[in-house]
Amino acid sequence: MKVGILGLGTVGGGVVNVLQKNSESIERRTGVKIEVVLAGVRDVKQKRICDTSNIKLTIDPFEVVNHPDVDVVLELIGGIGLTKELVETAINNGKHVITANKALIANHGNELIKLANKKQVRLLFEASVAGGIPIIKSLEQGLSANNIESLAGIINGTGNFILTDMKEKGRDFDDVLKEAQALGYAEEDPTFDVEGIDAAHKLSILAAIAFGTELQFDKVSTKGISDITTEDIIHASELGYTIKHLGIAKRAGEGIELRVHPTLVPNKQLIAQVDGVMNAVMVKSDALGTSLYYGAGAGDEATASAVIADLNDIINNQTSNHILGWKSQQKLPVIKSDDIQSEFFLRLLVSDIKGVLAKVTGIFNDHNVSIDALIQKQADENNNAHIAITTDKVSTKTVMSIKKSIEASAFNQAEVQIIHIELLD
Amino acid sequence: MKVGILGLGTVGGGVVNVLQKNSESIERRTGVKIEVVLAGVRDVKQKRICDTSNIKLTIDPFEVVNHPDVDVVLELIGGIGLTKELVETAINNGKHVITANKALIANHGNELIKLANKKQVRLLFEASVAGGIPIIKSLEQGLSANNIESLAGIINGTGNFILTDMKEKGRDFDDVLKEAQALGYAEEDPTFDVEGIDAAHKLSILAAIAFGTELQFDKVSTKGISDITTEDIIHASELGYTIKHLGIAKRAGEGIELRVHPTLVPNKQLIAQVDGVMNAVMVKSDALGTSLYYGAGAGDEATASAVIADLNDIINNQTSNHILGWKSQQKLPVIKSDDIQSEFFLRLLVSDIKGVLAKVTGIFNDHNVSIDALIQKQADENNNAHIAITTDKVSTKTVMSIKKSIEASAFNQAEVQIIHIELLD
Repeated sequence: MKVGILGLGTVGGGVVNVLQKNSESIERRTGVKIEVVLAGVRDVKQKRICDTSNIKLTIDPFEVVNHPDVDVVLELIGGIGLTKELVETAINNGKHVITANKALIANHGNELIKLANKKQVRLLFEASVAGGIPIIKSLEQGLSANNIESLAGIINGTGNFILTDMKEKGRDFDDVLKEAQALGYAEEDPTFDVEGIDAAHKLSILAAIAFGTELQFDKVSTKGISDITTEDIIHASELGYTIKHLGIAKRAGEGIELRVHPTLVPNKQLIAQVDGVMNAVMVKSDALGTSLYYGAGAGDEATASAVIADLNDIINNQTSNHILGWKSQQKLPVIKSDDIQSEFFLRLLVSDIKGVLAKVTGIFNDHNVSIDALIQKQADENNNAHIAITTDKVSTKTVMSIKKSIEASAFNQAEVQIIHIELLD
Repeated sequence: MKVGILGLGTVGGGVVNVLQKNSESIERRTGVKIEVVLAGVRDVKQKRICDTSNIKLTIDPFEVVNHPDVDVVLELIGGIGLTKELVETAINNGKHVITANKALIANHGNELIKLANKKQVRLLFEASVAGGIPIIKSLEQGLSANNIESLAGIINGTGNFILTDMKEKGRDFDDVLKEAQALGYAEEDPTFDVEGIDAAHKLSILAAIAFGTELQFDKVSTKGISDITTEDIIHASELGYTIKHLGIAKRAGEGIELRVHPTLVPNKQLIAQVDGVMNAVMVKSDALGTSLYYGAGAGDEATASAVIADLNDIINNQTSNHILGWKSQQKLPVIKSDDIQSEFFLRLLVSDIKGVLAKVTGIFNDHNVSIDALIQKQADENNNAHIAITTDKVSTKTVMSIKKSIEASAFNQAEVQIIHIELLD
């Protein structure tokens, strides 16, 4: 099998390295020799993490997707403009395509998959979600007997690193973000990671595979972690929860919920223990029940592990012709953000005046919302006190109305923090 | 696709139920209608957990494996005598076989797989290890780019239930075993579960798939949990460990270690948090690093999930012809138990006489073994004191020699408990 690679950076270099060092065992598994013949790069003279002595380098990416010797194109350059054109050209030339590009699949996957099915080639993207964890293959194959009810994943390592460090060391968001940037875990512009867009890309892919629907990235409710404070983390911890940034996809009524947001998770749940840059996806399905898949969500060789698994998948199963793992899709509308039901955590800062707790709980009562737990702390030097409240299940619309009522009250001293709770049981 | 089932008990009934309730989504995934046409049972009139109105029942199991309409036989009766003959007959008749029978695969898998390859049919057994967790598919497919370095699994739910309950409630082994039997988690004769034989069956299958070797069940060093005491659990906990019954397969030198035994695992490891009847397998591999797969290790529908995943695998990939997921096998000798290197936990009961600690530590010193941590408790009413010691890495042979020296000493008051430690990092 002859492979052409677009991009020889971290992931591309990792793929070449793993293919070289594990060539003997990979060939023993598949019976096929995988050969990287051609790579499209920006600068042929740049120093790389891999040995390129047997690979022809070209600065023309179209040479790779048009080359008659190439059976499979690995798209490892990222971006969704020129990259889309390159992938389309490769598919139109009858080549299989493997990509680690979640933005490309989330934004253009529907049309690209249609094109691949028409051309009878495969478009695979295990590496686009949760790095090396074989979560797409597990959903498509290992769980194929199941109706998936929900999945909840830590699918952005940068965000999880930041939240873990904030909790373990009591440090501020900005402080930890700077460290993550210095360590290379976060980009100079961290928006995609910390505002949840990267996680929303990945969630839309997971949901489409889990439920057999079209990709619906534009319908994901997305909230990042940049307004999470150490106060939130401490209060959550006192109530028995850890704050994780989760991507959640869930069957609800005739539709699905698609949401990415900070989430209080009970400490006893395994996913609450997933720390640092590690990723994990928890799946609830009707036959198996709860299962969880844990591993490295990024890194050159971890991502290469998923890219090469897709190569082996093509070797074993050349003829398969699926839409996101399904022979036919269903339409499932995405529930509007306002109508999503969940437990909530609210954190308030109030003047510690007589009867303030009665006023606060009265607002919940007026909205017909039950309080599950409440902590009130001693007032600070300004006579302001933190209150943390967890609710029973309630709609986002209702909890936003409670927030509004509290913020309109004279006793209120700061914006009310609202964070979803997921019990995951 | 027409399916014949041998056995309509818990697992067989679960398969029929899941195929019925999820028929729409399974067909939408695969494009193929799966039909159970025939089932071999002991008593056609017995009440069952599934609807059998569309299934022909027969008391002759050979009718199932010989029936011309049957494409795939699901072997769900267990046992390794008649069952082996039935599976061989099915394969010789050109039928694919799926089994949940770990004893059959562990004991006769090598010859059965050879026969299946010769007859160009598939013999699949995802359900034989860790119930519904897709661990075999993950090793064969998701991790196919990797050289596996080691795996460590909680692969017997009964044992994990007992150890979890002993820890959480401070109860004795015998006490919890009786409860497990009452709850149906343990058999009337619990030997297979509590003495580690069931785990050894599963470990031998995992190792063969992970390393691409023959099945070597007869070479697994196996120790059960029946001599674990609450004293062990308490001392381990004080040292920062949880005791789990693990199956461990590990590359070591030119060979592999295959062992099943109680193990101290650092509390911070995710697998230490896997409680009750749940299973989990942690894998270390060269490209991906550490990954973990968690879920239900038993139960009618959880096991059915794995059996039907294998059915879908056959639908997607009829032509594949592999030996345990590999096109060719390697020979890897199993390291002898005496030569296995590991950290160890030792628990002693000694007379609290002057200088006893110097004598104990002197024995370690004489054997050139470093002590990593030591706890000595206050003496009891008989003037006997518990000492718990953890060592650096040392061979089993050496630690057994230390045990012998201690037990030959005048200060010693009980058999020395020895338990492996695995840091898993």
